[in-house]
Amino acid sequence: MPIPLTLHPDRLFPADPATRDVARRLYATVKDLPIVSPHGHTDPRWFAADAPFANASELFITPDHYVFRMLYSQGIALEDLGIPRRDGGPVETDARKIWRAFAAHFHLFRGTPTRLWLDHAFATVFGIEERLTPESADRIFERINDCLARPDFRPRALFKRFNIEVLATTESPLDPLAQHAKIRASGWKGRVITAYRPDPVVDPEFDAFSDNVHALGTLTGENTTTWRGYLAAHRNRRAFFKTMGATSTDHGHPTPQTCDLPEPRCQQLLDRALAGSATADEAEQFRGQVLTEMARMSIDDGLVMQIHPGSSRNHNPAVLRAYGRDKGADIPTRTDYVRALKPLLDRFGNERNFTLILFTLDETTYARELAPLAGHYPILKLGPPWWFHDSPEGMLRFREQATETAGFYNTVGFNDDTRAFLSIPARHDVARRIDCRFLATLVVEHKIGEDEAFALAPLLAHDLAKQAYKL
Amino acid sequence: MPIPLTLHPDRLFPADPATRDVARRLYATVKDLPIVSPHGHTDPRWFAADAPFANASELFITPDHYVFRMLYSQGIALEDLGIPRRDGGPVETDARKIWRAFAAHFHLFRGTPTRLWLDHAFATVFGIEERLTPESADRIFERINDCLARPDFRPRALFKRFNIEVLATTESPLDPLAQHAKIRASGWKGRVITAYRPDPVVDPEFDAFSDNVHALGTLTGENTTTWRGYLAAHRNRRAFFKTMGATSTDHGHPTPQTCDLPEPRCQQLLDRALAGSATADEAEQFRGQVLTEMARMSIDDGLVMQIHPGSSRNHNPAVLRAYGRDKGADIPTRTDYVRALKPLLDRFGNERNFTLILFTLDETTYARELAPLAGHYPILKLGPPWWFHDSPEGMLRFREQATETAGFYNTVGFNDDTRAFLSIPARHDVARRIDCRFLATLVVEHKIGEDEAFALAPLLAHDLAKQAYKL
Amino acid sequence: MPIPLTLHPDRLFPADPATRDVARRLYATVKDLPIVSPHGHTDPRWFAADAPFANASELFITPDHYVFRMLYSQGIALEDLGIPRRDGGPVETDARKIWRAFAAHFHLFRGTPTRLWLDHAFATVFGIEERLTPESADRIFERINDCLARPDFRPRALFKRFNIEVLATTESPLDPLAQHAKIRASGWKGRVITAYRPDPVVDPEFDAFSDNVHALGTLTGENTTTWRGYLAAHRNRRAFFKTMGATSTDHGHPTPQTCDLPEPRCQQLLDRALAGSATADEAEQFRGQVLTEMARMSIDDGLVMQIHPGSSRNHNPAVLRAYGRDKGADIPTRTDYVRALKPLLDRFGNERNFTLILFTLDETTYARELAPLAGHYPILKLGPPWWFHDSPEGMLRFREQATETAGFYNTVGFNDDTRAFLSIPARHDVARRIDCRFLATLVVEHKIGEDEAFALAPLLAHDLAKQAYKL
Repeated sequence: MPIPLTLHPDRLFPADPATRDVARRLYATVKDLPIVSPHGHTDPRWFAADAPFANASELFITPDHYVFRMLYSQGIALEDLGIPRRDGGPVETDARKIWRAFAAHFHLFRGTPTRLWLDHAFATVFGIEERLTPESADRIFERINDCLARPDFRPRALFKRFNIEVLATTESPLDPLAQHAKIRASGWKGRVITAYRPDPVVDPEFDAFSDNVHALGTLTGENTTTWRGYLAAHRNRRAFFKTMGATSTDHGHPTPQTCDLPEPRCQQLLDRALAGSATADEAEQFRGQVLTEMARMSIDDGLVMQIHPGSSRNHNPAVLRAYGRDKGADIPTRTDYVRALKPLLDRFGNERNFTLILFTLDETTYARELAPLAGHYPILKLGPPWWFHDSPEGMLRFREQATETAGFYNTVGFNDDTRAFLSIPARHDVARRIDCRFLATLVVEHKIGEDEAFALAPLLAHDLAKQAYKL
Repeated sequence: MPIPLTLHPDRLFPADPATRDVARRLYATVKDLPIVSPHGHTDPRWFAADAPFANASELFITPDHYVFRMLYSQGIALEDLGIPRRDGGPVETDARKIWRAFAAHFHLFRGTPTRLWLDHAFATVFGIEERLTPESADRIFERINDCLARPDFRPRALFKRFNIEVLATTESPLDPLAQHAKIRASGWKGRVITAYRPDPVVDPEFDAFSDNVHALGTLTGENTTTWRGYLAAHRNRRAFFKTMGATSTDHGHPTPQTCDLPEPRCQQLLDRALAGSATADEAEQFRGQVLTEMARMSIDDGLVMQIHPGSSRNHNPAVLRAYGRDKGADIPTRTDYVRALKPLLDRFGNERNFTLILFTLDETTYARELAPLAGHYPILKLGPPWWFHDSPEGMLRFREQATETAGFYNTVGFNDDTRAFLSIPARHDVARRIDCRFLATLVVEHKIGEDEAFALAPLLAHDLAKQAYKL
Repeated sequence: MPIPLTLHPDRLFPADPATRDVARRLYATVKDLPIVSPHGHTDPRWFAADAPFANASELFITPDHYVFRMLYSQGIALEDLGIPRRDGGPVETDARKIWRAFAAHFHLFRGTPTRLWLDHAFATVFGIEERLTPESADRIFERINDCLARPDFRPRALFKRFNIEVLATTESPLDPLAQHAKIRASGWKGRVITAYRPDPVVDPEFDAFSDNVHALGTLTGENTTTWRGYLAAHRNRRAFFKTMGATSTDHGHPTPQTCDLPEPRCQQLLDRALAGSATADEAEQFRGQVLTEMARMSIDDGLVMQIHPGSSRNHNPAVLRAYGRDKGADIPTRTDYVRALKPLLDRFGNERNFTLILFTLDETTYARELAPLAGHYPILKLGPPWWFHDSPEGMLRFREQATETAGFYNTVGFNDDTRAFLSIPARHDVARRIDCRFLATLVVEHKIGEDEAFALAPLLAHDLAKQAYKL
């Protein structure tokens, strides 16, 4: 017998009736606001080509590292989920079989945000009314596939249905942005913009760094073997990214270390990085110096700067060898901001027309470092809970730990930061519900007036993101 | 006038009526499940000899470092609590006087789990109906002593009354396991098994390490001055421990550092450790290498591996000198898992028939390191909150911080990990109540269905421990 | 239309009706207890001269780094808030304009404790009945100024109205304590005492350290270029501070590092510090050695010792250059206690007549380090949540994370630790409400009896501070 799947209208609200009542009323004012998605990793090709998604498994499982990391942790082989091997070795290609393997282990997601996102997409996008179980797997698989074949389930139609006001993707400086150009040329009204993520030409430890910097030179006509030429090439690409709508840059470094070194040392670090002879410490200095340069460029060209530090990427070498990057084997690490950001802050921390948005995978920094920093420095703002912390409990901890020192106005609303297109409405819905819940608690505990909560709710749901990212 | 001692049926449940109602109903389904105690430090002699416990003070105070550390912190001399001095100096031997000193300071335990455990034991084991106060101290002392003299309060009778399905003790490889042999030979049906805890022959900084390794050689007939002989001796003892029921090993290292070094370096480290000339860093490498070897052996012999890292043992040298180890002077330290475990994970992290259960005294690692690691690596599972965190708030933090990334199925139920036999039912009861409370919150906030909570409750209370520890 | 400002009688209590009811009843028993303020930074001149406060802006904005750091973080120039420049450059001097700038941004404080403190002072001290908004700014400004001109709003009258039993200020050893002498000579009954805060003569990295130590020699007639003379000078000043009521010392070091070095090394460190040639590591050793010496002196003279470690002071060099110290640019850092305190604890940790009160800006240490340390060592007690954590959520986290291991009796009640005189009643009120809330939760979850909560509430609100600080 099918188990009903219902999205309870009060989900994620606290049980206390008085608080729930306030949360409900706040949420009613924000639930239908357009989605501002200022940072994420969706594929612009979807919106350029507007081709149908292939099937349920390719939509929900194969590209979603949240999903397959959990399955892998419980002994399911990535091959059985259709994750391509780098050696071209055999993997499951039968989408139905992959779906059944997923359905057989759907209970693993109990208590996780992935479960919330999937149920939300199943119910709201596909109208599914029963829970995914081994018994219902085939019916749901077919229902999704049937839908995907219809025009109103193509990417652009979903973009519109999701009420997305603007969506930023993330590209390398080496990307010609052909998909973005195609979107713009198409006459489609959806606003999809790029963002400048230069890690492949900034991190000496990135695959093929030297080749990448060479390619950057070719692309821009700059001599990227000189520090000045290297910086000029960045300026060039940033300007180009702006023509494709970019309002921000993003930097995914192992740490938030920044540096402020004399030019000869910068040239020396570049030389060693290009020669592949930079030590780990020199690579860290190089990345740190580039962050400070990026801040300087942002002051000139107006791009908002983001740092997403603290992930130990590709922690599992066997998984990296067999399947490549971004396969669920990135692990957070302890992150220091107070010392790491000081060189950049000493130089640019008091600027008035520059915004640096900080993210973290280390929640211990919310109250200890990030809120005190953002509650002082004019350039700093706090990004929302990220990655493993983009979850109901994670969001509550962020508000509970950051608000008393940073307030609300040093935060920037929500980022979905996802590759999983169908999770975007779900993730924003979770954020809106949790923020309304947090505000409701402030109201019932008489920390702020109810009128103030009603003023704050749309800021957190929509306006702060738009303002902070200049959208 | 005596103050009533009543264990409220709703204790540890949240005040919200809707949540409390769900918690109550969940708890009703698990409260009488048998206790699986897969890791702890009770004395096998109790079950081998089945002799009566001496008196209330020797049962509740003298052996319980939770109790006397709190009393010591408030200025009560350990001598006054009957803690034996290493120099044989005089200590209080009058059990009643010790009990009165304890009763006079019972208020210090307000808000602590020790208070919950003691009240639980007083009420459920001894039928005591008044709170321990200076006024009631003598009556309670006598009541407990009267009970202890009766056959139904001997260790085996209590084991049965506590509904313990299986109880693991923890022994050194040098232990001949005579008590366990005696238990097995006795025909008693209680299942008491050992676990392999080789710290005395693994940690070069352990007292008499070199003598211990020599003794290990004598015991096994292996030449433990060679790396290969040393490993063979471990294999030998592990096999012997398995004959006494062992299904697991345990490692209580200062850090979770693992290493994967070439054999000549291993021999060199062993040489230096045996010579007493290993530096602190070499001792750390030696311990780290042995962890990796233990993983390799577990893949062969099937023993589940546990690591309990991060305690700065014997922090107070005056207490160590006067009273010895395990006297409440062990203090948690910051612990890194991401870098420390990498050598072992690089080698064995993707195995399918090996389980490594991680514990921590550093709660900041739950969301940042442990849940992401366990939510990816097939071999990793998360042990329950340990030691100072084996408490209602500690358990809630664990579930709140680990579940969203690791789910429930990468956890292993509850460990009481105690030397205090009478606290075992109390500790499991706390864990069951807190887990039911956590599940109830998920239900009333509509994160999971009520049917799912009812499916999870017995897993958390009983089944996951049994499965993870192969019991 | 004015928005009403009402301090709700149930503010900061949880929404759950049963818990709120217990919290209310507990709070009723402590709300009118006298205020014990054992540590803070109010200006003794206020009570010596008893001159009126100048105006609303000089009372609430210019001296309060909580207020202007938030405004600065959102782009308001410190000059516009009347913060004096070190170069004497122009700053706003029109108190009304400053007040209007503040009122225009009052929404920034939503969700912060500053908002709670300001509303409390507005309502309870000045009888203001409308919220501060741009529209009400002038009326409130005038109301406050009118009040301040009246005798019953002078410092001594407010001291009495606030029901302050005792208030400690904090002075350098170089301070002649003339204001304290004047207070004592005045015949006024208010109890205002000093505390010994020797950072300027203890920290080699403090401005003019060498001059300060020289001045200390002059003041005491000791040769402070010798280690023995330097220590004798401290003893001398501590004795003098005791004559001005001091019962405690306080130490604001970058870390809680302690040392226990041989005398020749101490002399060498002093030599190098006085010569300005101490390395960062030597400065740390010097500070660490002095902490251990201060403990030794406390055992002799009975002064309670406090350590407030972990602030990265003057993080923003531009703000330091332009406006000086204590301008909201101090940022917390990760802090280790387990290793750092060991030298001092090894020497004096088991003393019976010495109290060392530990504070932290790193909340991760509550459960991991501080509670386990305080729950063992007789000399250690835990100070209340400090600075950025002196807030409702911060206080709850402290109780939730420290109580299970340290209990209540290893804590010392509340410190307001403020320069903002009018926030003192508000801060104590927040602490009392949050503690009653925490106790109420223990009661409704049946962890302690209601009678025990009623016994604990006045301890937390009043008695523990008085006892721990020997007041």
